[in-house]
Amino acid sequence: MQLVYEGKSKRVYVKTSNELVFEFKDEVTAGDGAIKASAPGKGALCASVSAHLFRVLEDSGIETHFLDYDGSRRITVRGLKMIPIEVIVRNFSYGSLLKRMPLYRELEPLTPPLIEFHYKDDSLHDPLVLSEDILRTGLLSAAELDELVKKSASVNNILKKYFESFGLRLVDIKLEFGFDPSRRLVLADEISGDTFRVLDESGRHLDKEVFRRTKSVDALLEAYQRLVSRLGLSVKM
Amino acid sequence: MQLVYEGKSKRVYVKTSNELVFEFKDEVTAGDGAIKASAPGKGALCASVSAHLFRVLEDSGIETHFLDYDGSRRITVRGLKMIPIEVIVRNFSYGSLLKRMPLYRELEPLTPPLIEFHYKDDSLHDPLVLSEDILRTGLLSAAELDELVKKSASVNNILKKYFESFGLRLVDIKLEFGFDPSRRLVLADEISGDTFRVLDESGRHLDKEVFRRTKSVDALLEAYQRLVSRLGLSVKM
Repeated sequence: MQLVYEGKSKRVYVKTSNELVFEFKDEVTAGDGAIKASAPGKGALCASVSAHLFRVLEDSGIETHFLDYDGSRRITVRGLKMIPIEVIVRNFSYGSLLKRMPLYRELEPLTPPLIEFHYKDDSLHDPLVLSEDILRTGLLSAAELDELVKKSASVNNILKKYFESFGLRLVDIKLEFGFDPSRRLVLADEISGDTFRVLDESGRHLDKEVFRRTKSVDALLEAYQRLVSRLGLSVKM
Repeated sequence: MQLVYEGKSKRVYVKTSNELVFEFKDEVTAGDGAIKASAPGKGALCASVSAHLFRVLEDSGIETHFLDYDGSRRITVRGLKMIPIEVIVRNFSYGSLLKRMPLYRELEPLTPPLIEFHYKDDSLHDPLVLSEDILRTGLLSAAELDELVKKSASVNNILKKYFESFGLRLVDIKLEFGFDPSRRLVLADEISGDTFRVLDESGRHLDKEVFRRTKSVDALLEAYQRLVSRLGLSVKM
C-alpha cells in the first residue's frame, strides 16, 4: 500500500481508490512534537478505542469514515476531502482555554459545551480562528459551518453520555471532518486518548495529559490500558 | 502626580480623583517588548495624533476619555474602569490575521470590517479570544458586548473616512474601552501609529510597522512626522 501521509501519531496508506488504512504509531509526542518517545502497544490501544467509538457513533446515527478494524493497530476508513479545521468541543474548561483566557476556573462546567475552531497547520501551532475566518476565506459556506457545529455538538453529546455510563467524564474532544464525494460532512480522523481528555471518578486522566505531565511512557500506557478496560475492550499487546 | 501604571509606551499618572495624565514615552518597542529603542520626539508625535483623533471622534458623537492636550507628550483623560480586552477592527487583512489563517490574501479588503477580541495579558501575548469567552467568564454582558462591537465599528468607520479624506488608507486599528462611573462604555487608551496601520497612496506605512520591519528609529520618526503632516498637525519636537 502506498504511504500518502505521515503525521505525529499516524501513517495513512491508500488501500483502494476510496479506502485508506490508518496505522497508529507506537509513538507518543508532546509539546507540538518537541518531545517524542517510543510507546510500544500505544498504536493498538488508540486504534481499538477509535474503532470502538466510531462504531458507537455509527450506532447513534453519526456518519463516520470508519469501515473496518481487525484488532491490530490499523483501521480501514473511507477516503474523504478533509477540512483543515480542528473542532474542539469543551464540556469543562481545561488546557489551552485557560491559557488564552485565565478568567475561566479550571474544570469549570461549560454549558452548553464551548465549540471552537483551530486552523490545522503544525508550523503555526494550529491557531484558534474565528467562524468569520472560515466563512470569509471561503473554506466553508455558512450552511456547511452550521452543519459542522451541529454535528460536532451531537458527537460530543453522544460520547459524553457514553463515557458517563462507565463513570467517566469527557472534559474535551478534538474532531476533524471531511466531505464525501457528494459533499456530505463525515466525521474522520481518530477518537482516542490522543484526541480527548477523559477523567475517572478520582480525577485521574485516562488520556495523553498523563504523558504531557509526567513524560513517562509507562504511565501513559497504563492510563490507556485503564481506558480500554473501563470501556470493556480487550487489546492484544 | 502619582505614577499608577507604566506600560511599554506610556506612563499613567493620577491628576485628580477622576483625571489621569497619559505620558507618551520617547521609546519604541517591537516583538512584544523584546526589542526596545529610544525614540526622541515619538511621545509628542503620538500624543498629538491621539489628542487630534479623539477630538475628531468626539465631534462625531463618540464618547472618549480625552479631556485636554497642551502640545506636549502628555494628554489629560478621564479615569475609567478599563475592560481588559483589545478590540481589533480590520478593514484589510494584515499582520496577525495572516498568521492565524494563511488562506487570507495580504491586504484583501474585509467587508464588513472584521472585529476581533484579544485578552490583554502581556505574559500570554494578548491572545485572540472568542465572544463566548468574554460572555462565559462574565467579563461583559451580552448587551455590553453588543455595544462594544457597535461602538468599535463606528469608531473605525469615522476614522477610516477621516483618513480617506487625506488620501490615506486605514488597514486596521486596536481599540480599548472602559466604563465610566455610570457604566457607560467610553473609548480610552490612545489612537496613534502605535495602535493603527495606515498606508499612503504609494503603500508606505505611516505607522509602527516601519519599525517592526526596519528596526530603524529614524525611519519610524520620519513616518510618524509624515503622518502628523498629512493630518495637518504641527508638533514641537
